[in-house]
Amino acid sequence: RINGQRLWDSLMEMATIGATAKGGCNRQALTDLDKQGRDLFVQWCEDAGCSITIDEMGNIFARRAGNNGDLAPVLTGSHLDTQPTGGKFDGVYGVLAGLEVIRTLNDHNLDTEAPLEVAVWTNEEGARFSPAMIGSGVWSGNFDKEYAYARTDKEGKTFGEELERIGYQGEAPAKPRDLAAAFEVHIEQGPILEAEEKQIGVLSGVQGMYWYDLTLIGQPCHAGPSPMETRRDPFMGLHRILDQLYKLAEAHAPWARVTFGDIRAEPGSRNTVPEKLVLAVDLRHPDQQVLDTMDKSFREIAAGTAAELGLEHQIRDEWRSPAVRFDEKCVEAVRSSVAELGYSNKEMVSGAGHDSVYISRVAPTSMIFVPCEKGLSHNEAENAEPDDLEAGANALLHAMLKMANQ
Amino acid sequence: RINGQRLWDSLMEMATIGATAKGGCNRQALTDLDKQGRDLFVQWCEDAGCSITIDEMGNIFARRAGNNGDLAPVLTGSHLDTQPTGGKFDGVYGVLAGLEVIRTLNDHNLDTEAPLEVAVWTNEEGARFSPAMIGSGVWSGNFDKEYAYARTDKEGKTFGEELERIGYQGEAPAKPRDLAAAFEVHIEQGPILEAEEKQIGVLSGVQGMYWYDLTLIGQPCHAGPSPMETRRDPFMGLHRILDQLYKLAEAHAPWARVTFGDIRAEPGSRNTVPEKLVLAVDLRHPDQQVLDTMDKSFREIAAGTAAELGLEHQIRDEWRSPAVRFDEKCVEAVRSSVAELGYSNKEMVSGAGHDSVYISRVAPTSMIFVPCEKGLSHNEAENAEPDDLEAGANALLHAMLKMANQ
Ligand SMILES: NC(=O)NCCC(=O)O
Ligand SMILES: NC(=O)NCCC(=O)O
Repeated sequence: RINGQRLWDSLMEMATIGATAKGGCNRQALTDLDKQGRDLFVQWCEDAGCSITIDEMGNIFARRAGNNGDLAPVLTGSHLDTQPTGGKFDGVYGVLAGLEVIRTLNDHNLDTEAPLEVAVWTNEEGARFSPAMIGSGVWSGNFDKEYAYARTDKEGKTFGEELERIGYQGEAPAKPRDLAAAFEVHIEQGPILEAEEKQIGVLSGVQGMYWYDLTLIGQPCHAGPSPMETRRDPFMGLHRILDQLYKLAEAHAPWARVTFGDIRAEPGSRNTVPEKLVLAVDLRHPDQQVLDTMDKSFREIAAGTAAELGLEHQIRDEWRSPAVRFDEKCVEAVRSSVAELGYSNKEMVSGAGHDSVYISRVAPTSMIFVPCEKGLSHNEAENAEPDDLEAGANALLHAMLKMANQ
Repeated sequence: RINGQRLWDSLMEMATIGATAKGGCNRQALTDLDKQGRDLFVQWCEDAGCSITIDEMGNIFARRAGNNGDLAPVLTGSHLDTQPTGGKFDGVYGVLAGLEVIRTLNDHNLDTEAPLEVAVWTNEEGARFSPAMIGSGVWSGNFDKEYAYARTDKEGKTFGEELERIGYQGEAPAKPRDLAAAFEVHIEQGPILEAEEKQIGVLSGVQGMYWYDLTLIGQPCHAGPSPMETRRDPFMGLHRILDQLYKLAEAHAPWARVTFGDIRAEPGSRNTVPEKLVLAVDLRHPDQQVLDTMDKSFREIAAGTAAELGLEHQIRDEWRSPAVRFDEKCVEAVRSSVAELGYSNKEMVSGAGHDSVYISRVAPTSMIFVPCEKGLSHNEAENAEPDDLEAGANALLHAMLKMANQ
């Protein structure tokens, strides 16, 4: 069994880096604070006797040797970057639970047959650089390294520049290696486990998610003398599109998710009807077919509304992450570990994307969830119970041992 | 009669400063480009024998002496700053038409009894620093200098710093002096004169306009796992409020104007329901009573929608400019000048705010409009006919002479 107090203390120490006034964390990818968080993690891993490898995407791999150097490693991990107004647990928990597994094995002088690795994946959140999960995405061959390096933040700084600047552009190629299994433990970021009073979520997959930039283009004109009826005003299109997309979510309730995380007006002057509105759209559904229906409806709604109002519109596909099913053997390793440990549990699908989405394309993968308070995440008030975090790390320990000693 | 070609050439020369690829101008207040435009204007005025005074707000006054130094001057003027995607004529025309009046009098060696002045008012557009017309606003005693100096642009730079930086913080106090009359000639920025084929608008006043920042506050949460029905999503409030405000404009058609020039989401991350949306709202109506009714409805709509959806909301009054009626003697000076010159004309009310709104509070004031192509303004495609610009400047010349030699 892992040391729950040590895990909690490490989480709290990491949370001081980028701590916000409201008790959350702002440690966005490839900032100075991200560097500080990475440095601390690397130090901890070295103290635990691990060897460190950093790849060209800044992904960090901390390795604890196994008895049989020929065996493919069992990997776990998640991310250390946060949302701008993020919490202390999202991602960080998965990384530090992995470290806690290694510390626990060290405490008991326990060897494994296969090596164990704890990974930190770069820029999972997609908040500073879109899309999400780009570190694991390049590593798994889903994106090119050049594409990732060229991604820009809102200030126009590129991923490549910032990675180099913080000193985490490693030499190892960012490409898949042979893995015996990969696991990731994460807070649920939703309300189901808490509501159903289950301590562990045994994940069978991840819902599909599509990201878009919808641009509505009208004609800028003066707010005063320009008659309402001759305007081509992107806001007139916006409200109709929002309305229809919220109705689309209702039509595919309860599982459909429709989110608008960001919006920008150009030129953005108080007394000028904007020329453009750029809206970030996020559509999700666990069933790939339904998600594709939603994708089609979204395009029709945008095109239809723009046509009605004499606006132009553009839809840029920012990211497409289809629904994922995890590896049955890995799911079973989690299921049986949780049963042995006697934790109440539920089989479920993740609503959030995780690095495991990409890892699952190149290695047998599954995930473990623990409840989080009120299902709140991507929020500074994000919280989780020490007991649940301990249970999740124990489930991870057992599942990793099963796969490393098989 | 003024020299239409010289006026046009000066307009085109000024338009090279901050010229945009689409044929417009981006010469926002207190930028380096604004400084260049001011320098050029000051040079032209000095060449025309004027003495220059600059006040603490950066307002520029170019004075042509009169025969009787005891008489209060007749003033004209407008602004040289533009919208971010502005045109070549908005404001600039009123300044350069004033200069053209002086150049014409010089050409013919004509003296006036009262002195004449051409003013450049700082930051009329309100695009870089809100509110609009702040140079004339402080000068006329409507705002404090300290309030103006503390206004910030989107990058957080203050008006005061930027004014000093470009070297246009003068010594003269920004406060009203005795003026015999003040006139301003401007493009209409709306479609009426063009549609009715009139060359000159004789203005009796300016409609009322209120600016607000509406903030909708919800609860940030994760775009994936958070169920739609438990979200407190500011976008769900936004679309209902936009819808109701556009309906409010319809209810007070044809004169009501409802415009949303800018919007911002916080934290502005693709996969997070925003905590806040901040929307710039601009409501206008020529009838002060109707505008006050609209103001009340706006507050009810915002409060009602927020309450329905469990959102919080805040309304910040950014600027209130009540409806204005111009001085009857000045209006008559324009009316009779236009009649003498034989120009087709229409009496009307301005849809846009102008420096004359504030000047009219401390001096007898009126305005002259000329048509602009398709009524388009605050747009890089803004355009006006040389003939109309010439007619407007002639009307200005005659009205100024009437008041200076009475
Ligand atoms: N776990 C998490 O916040 N992932 C980011 C990707 C997503 O938007 O689901
Ligand atoms: N003329 C002009 O564009 N003025 C700015 C103030 C307003 O918004 O009406």
